[in-house]
Amino acid sequence: MQNEALATIAVLGGTGKEGGGLALRWAHKGHKVIIGSRTAERAQEAADAMNATLGGSSVVGAANPDAAAQADIIVLAVPYAAQQSTVKDVADALAGKILIDVTVPLVPPKVSRVQLPDGGSAVEAVQKMLGDGVRVVSAFQNISAHHLTKLDEEIECDVLVCADDSDAAEQVVALAQEIGLRAWNAGPLCNSVVAEGLTSVLIALNRRYKVPGSGIRITGV
Amino acid sequence: MQNEALATIAVLGGTGKEGGGLALRWAHKGHKVIIGSRTAERAQEAADAMNATLGGSSVVGAANPDAAAQADIIVLAVPYAAQQSTVKDVADALAGKILIDVTVPLVPPKVSRVQLPDGGSAVEAVQKMLGDGVRVVSAFQNISAHHLTKLDEEIECDVLVCADDSDAAEQVVALAQEIGLRAWNAGPLCNSVVAEGLTSVLIALNRRYKVPGSGIRITGV
Repeated sequence: MQNEALATIAVLGGTGKEGGGLALRWAHKGHKVIIGSRTAERAQEAADAMNATLGGSSVVGAANPDAAAQADIIVLAVPYAAQQSTVKDVADALAGKILIDVTVPLVPPKVSRVQLPDGGSAVEAVQKMLGDGVRVVSAFQNISAHHLTKLDEEIECDVLVCADDSDAAEQVVALAQEIGLRAWNAGPLCNSVVAEGLTSVLIALNRRYKVPGSGIRITGV
Repeated sequence: MQNEALATIAVLGGTGKEGGGLALRWAHKGHKVIIGSRTAERAQEAADAMNATLGGSSVVGAANPDAAAQADIIVLAVPYAAQQSTVKDVADALAGKILIDVTVPLVPPKVSRVQLPDGGSAVEAVQKMLGDGVRVVSAFQNISAHHLTKLDEEIECDVLVCADDSDAAEQVVALAQEIGLRAWNAGPLCNSVVAEGLTSVLIALNRRYKVPGSGIRITGV
């Protein structure tokens, strides 16, 4: 299934639902995908399960720093509480690469309330920690993991892609389109506060209107 | 055109495009509408123009404090720079009423960047200033004024309604539906940060994709 012309993608936190769903879709489209986790063993278990689902061998597992080192593009899909420590663990492997941050700053138990860290977006703190040498892009926060794992299902939710490096944002728009998602270059990294906060709004809508996975579509474009 | 059974609505800043568009649509549906402005003269001019458009007399003009005093529901649709001073001017007339805040904290010239006041939503500062005796609701930030003034045009943008008083939020959802808008009770007032920030994201999309008025639809509900 591997296609040498396609970027190798590491999904840190790929053992989780959201990261796992994205990993599955990219592997299905021919990317070599490396599942990252805190331990190589857990990562390999998730990779094996994914290969079994896809009937291939394009997914491998590794500890987060090894996964990041071997990839062209790194996706950060860990819980908010682990965001900064995971970035520190892999920072040495990120120079010059694109880091796609999927983190939503949910603060349990009130996950349907928007609670911004220090009033800003979570991803801006990551960009600040890493410096300009890493191309940090925010994306995929609002996509329901439930829908990602159904490979033939059209996902009725658009992806807002935010980055200070507009070329990196366009590459992530293309990566989203590859797996069947409508995606938009939505401006600078600070605009990610909307995508991050929107997840809590969608959880609030799910609860109030008793639906499993609300989303958004951009209209008029 | 006036219908005594319907709430009287004051639109502070109803001389502007967004407030004027909302005022026109509510007047068209039979509400008595009071246009508020800093001077009664400017307000009356805008009211006269609206009555001429509608062929009626249901719209009147008044200085902001008088407009607020005579209304059941007050809509705040002034520029961000005038938000807090306008609220102070009319505070005495708001007790027990619903105040619908439409304010977007745009900071020119970079209006396509999300720039949150002290990291939070603009409307929370208003609720804090007024105290619990006023039912503050955030809504309508993302609706293009351009579309509102075309009375027979379907508007392809949903309204996110946020309030700590859920009953007040439901009343505003109904007011939005009256004028042909899909609207959702999107959780507590702090969630307004998404609706406020989303306006800058939509401006960023308008510029990048060269469209006049992008919007959002909620899906899966």
